[in-house]
Amino acid sequence: MTKRVLGIDPGLLHTGWAVIDTAGSSRKYIASGVILPKTTLPFSERLATIFRGVSELCETFAPDECSIEITFVNKNPKTTLILGHARAAAIVAVANRGIPVFEYEPNKIKKALTGAGHADKTAIDKMVQILLPAAHPKTADEADAIAIALAHTNMTRFI
Amino acid sequence: MTKRVLGIDPGLLHTGWAVIDTAGSSRKYIASGVILPKTTLPFSERLATIFRGVSELCETFAPDECSIEITFVNKNPKTTLILGHARAAAIVAVANRGIPVFEYEPNKIKKALTGAGHADKTAIDKMVQILLPAAHPKTADEADAIAIALAHTNMTRFI
Repeated sequence: MTKRVLGIDPGLLHTGWAVIDTAGSSRKYIASGVILPKTTLPFSERLATIFRGVSELCETFAPDECSIEITFVNKNPKTTLILGHARAAAIVAVANRGIPVFEYEPNKIKKALTGAGHADKTAIDKMVQILLPAAHPKTADEADAIAIALAHTNMTRFI
Repeated sequence: MTKRVLGIDPGLLHTGWAVIDTAGSSRKYIASGVILPKTTLPFSERLATIFRGVSELCETFAPDECSIEITFVNKNPKTTLILGHARAAAIVAVANRGIPVFEYEPNKIKKALTGAGHADKTAIDKMVQILLPAAHPKTADEADAIAIALAHTNMTRFI
């Protein structure tokens, strides 16, 4: 049975997204892209742009599950707080449609993709290229969203 | 002309809300309450509960404007990050309907209500009682939401 996964890499400036189909050990790249809220809009409308963008993705691709990274407070709590808002705007768009949202710690995503929780970006990109040769992300946010979706499909393998 | 304001005091455990009508210098309490997402639900569904709750308020009361406090990073950035998610879930519900969201710093809300940016809770409660005698909030979150809505209606008076 094919399962469709929506991976999201949220951000107020760029929210990366990717759709992947998985059936057993096979995976198929469907689509990916980036939602870019206009920076001239008020904060609330930028969040609404992310919400509407993810809502449209759910309508267009009808994912069965959604995969998203857990945000931790980093050196800049203010930036983390803004990221939290963007992340919630994306989560709400998915959860409001009854689509289950799976949240993973960044090292769990790395481990699920490469077998190592501290894998670097190159190792992750390599695994994405091997598992999904049809994916040609144009931006880092798109690449991260693909990795997040892919990690979810791998989740039972390594952890 | 009557303007209807929705005030929101967001939180993952309790999201307080209040609806106030204002026309010139007169104000009328319409309704207030608290959205309580079930704590047994996954995080994403708790956020969706806030989103749906605020969406329903917008449908029921058709507010013209929304007033919400700006969140700052406090001593516990992790708690602030969770609050940011709850706040975004509420903001998105309003902004997605094209209702303008006005965000105010806490001291601006205090100043708009009492004339002093460092007014204590008692002074604020007193002003709310004077301006809106019909309001009888049952919880602190509901009282805060009333104050946030009321402050917005006062915003041109003191600042």
